[in-house]
Amino acid sequence: MQRLNLRIPGPTPLPPVAYHLLRERFQYFRGPEFAALFEEIADGLRYVFQTRNEVLVLTASGTGGLEAALANVLSPGDRALVVITGVFGERWLQIARAYGVDATPLRFPLGKDADPEEVRRALRTTVPYKAVLLTHNETSTGVTNDLQAVAEAVRSVEEPPLLLVDAVSSLGAIDIRTDEWGCDVVVTASQKALMAPPGLALISVSPRAWEAVEMSRTPRFYWDFRRMREYAARQQTPFTPAVSTLFGLRESLKRIRTEGLEEVLARHRRVAEFTRRGVKSLGLRLFPDESCASNTVTAVRVPEGTDADEIIRRLHDEHGIVIAGGQGPLRGKILRVGHMGYVEEKDMRKVIKALALVLRKVTSSTDSGFGGS
Amino acid sequence: MQRLNLRIPGPTPLPPVAYHLLRERFQYFRGPEFAALFEEIADGLRYVFQTRNEVLVLTASGTGGLEAALANVLSPGDRALVVITGVFGERWLQIARAYGVDATPLRFPLGKDADPEEVRRALRTTVPYKAVLLTHNETSTGVTNDLQAVAEAVRSVEEPPLLLVDAVSSLGAIDIRTDEWGCDVVVTASQKALMAPPGLALISVSPRAWEAVEMSRTPRFYWDFRRMREYAARQQTPFTPAVSTLFGLRESLKRIRTEGLEEVLARHRRVAEFTRRGVKSLGLRLFPDESCASNTVTAVRVPEGTDADEIIRRLHDEHGIVIAGGQGPLRGKILRVGHMGYVEEKDMRKVIKALALVLRKVTSSTDSGFGGS
Repeated sequence: MQRLNLRIPGPTPLPPVAYHLLRERFQYFRGPEFAALFEEIADGLRYVFQTRNEVLVLTASGTGGLEAALANVLSPGDRALVVITGVFGERWLQIARAYGVDATPLRFPLGKDADPEEVRRALRTTVPYKAVLLTHNETSTGVTNDLQAVAEAVRSVEEPPLLLVDAVSSLGAIDIRTDEWGCDVVVTASQKALMAPPGLALISVSPRAWEAVEMSRTPRFYWDFRRMREYAARQQTPFTPAVSTLFGLRESLKRIRTEGLEEVLARHRRVAEFTRRGVKSLGLRLFPDESCASNTVTAVRVPEGTDADEIIRRLHDEHGIVIAGGQGPLRGKILRVGHMGYVEEKDMRKVIKALALVLRKVTSSTDSGFGGS
Repeated sequence: MQRLNLRIPGPTPLPPVAYHLLRERFQYFRGPEFAALFEEIADGLRYVFQTRNEVLVLTASGTGGLEAALANVLSPGDRALVVITGVFGERWLQIARAYGVDATPLRFPLGKDADPEEVRRALRTTVPYKAVLLTHNETSTGVTNDLQAVAEAVRSVEEPPLLLVDAVSSLGAIDIRTDEWGCDVVVTASQKALMAPPGLALISVSPRAWEAVEMSRTPRFYWDFRRMREYAARQQTPFTPAVSTLFGLRESLKRIRTEGLEEVLARHRRVAEFTRRGVKSLGLRLFPDESCASNTVTAVRVPEGTDADEIIRRLHDEHGIVIAGGQGPLRGKILRVGHMGYVEEKDMRKVIKALALVLRKVTSSTDSGFGGS
């Protein structure tokens, strides 16, 4: 199989050392070796989550992490406000409704970020909300919501609801001050900015959220945070974890600590700005408002008269580069380039160059198609 | 870190080729490369499950797979008979109760297998059971239940309940004729006899079980079999799967097909018999009745006057071999040696030799402790 240059909004390319460590022959999860691994990872996670909370480790994809968060904190009939800026906000809503939560969507136009003032207004109701569900970085539109401002709006209510944050495509790339901003549950996954293979969800739980966990009447066993905390106290997980993935995660957390979180965040800003400048220089237009354009994924409009699928196919076949198209209502209308985790300007330079070549081809083929020869 | 010789009841040692493939740089799960991988795995799984059913692939541990099976097939208030022969049978019961299922335990003494006649009798009630939950191979006691006979007992009832089988530590090592015996849901995990790293649950669902899936009122989203089937039709999973683990799984499924399932099962019988003879030659007594002793894990009684933890520690420290102790009520009373997946007689010969040396030491130190010097 051809080695592909993975430039989608995750899974992301892995640093070389991670491959090496995936080979680790050691897969046991009850012995002292695992306890040391567990502790090192717990420490590293607290650092990137910027929290003193316990960060739980769950073998599941990011969506599994979101479902676990919801099942532990909310009960059927609880009211939740779901702030929606795209496909992943809609997913929060679907999960909430699947669990019988009385969920109210607060939708913003695709390509815009959530307005904290509108969130504040929506929360001023006679029957209080138990929770607000937010997607920090909406990969489907390339938009980052202003988490700090939304968190402030949430906290400004008299009996503040719990804030549950989907940080799958942001944590470790875009600033999230879990404790300082008052984020109650923050969920991320191993395969995005954390540069490990897919298979792990990582979840920080605030003391206020733990109170809700004790109260929740939602059925759960594998998802149960209480059991995870009980085992975490002895550096274990309740059930067999994805050990190989944990080895990869340990290395990437080390890597982040060595680079320094500040610098990691700054690098993502630089690479994103570089990418935005690059695509604009090709005459492409950003899909989101530039003021809320994401530092982990850049979404651009498909140029008039060109076919998104052909651009994606040619990048893959002719350059070994994988980018993503639009989802749902944006299918065929936008292209999405991921730049999170193990990424530098030079990686994006390659993508921009290849995109330039492909665009020239698809535009000229369209021209000849229309003009005849 | 020392390379450990992993002889616990799973995770199990990986064949060398699997390490190599875990390094595969390709982690994308929506493109044509993934579709080919998915199809190859689906095929291989139908072969080892001996089924024509769809086998679903879920990123979670085996327990997650059991929970998903239950949540999809049963609703709160449904009646289930839980056949219990040890810790993993008790886990089935806990999951069922967590989900509000009206679960009746049918317990057998530790070290014995389930009596199919008793199962048949228990099912003769005025209010019919919706499901029977069975642990095929109980690793906590080293017992294999007679799945074929239990399945026959279940089917002998007028309105046969659904049979849900925990085959986590048996499938791919001990014969399971999913379709022929009428097993409705069979759950296994990647890290046992299937020789891949932990992180995937694999679940076969019969047409009858699919009818129940459509009826279930249990909340679920990540667990939802319907969404998995919908995506499986286009060779995808609904959410980011543990791609690296899938690469490993593809290789081990190929390996099983090359060896031939018949021969794989025969090898497990040979290795298990070899292990049982070996431990008995050291004067150790099997914990279970030999008639139901498992072909994937051998449980032996800790010899009078010796300390289980010391035996385990010395095997680890002095020989780099990891075996397991007893769980729950059997803690300190038994030792458990795993032999499933990537295993040959010669691997067990090493374990028996090391165990002989360790037993000599702990016995003589006990003697001198009592006898003085």
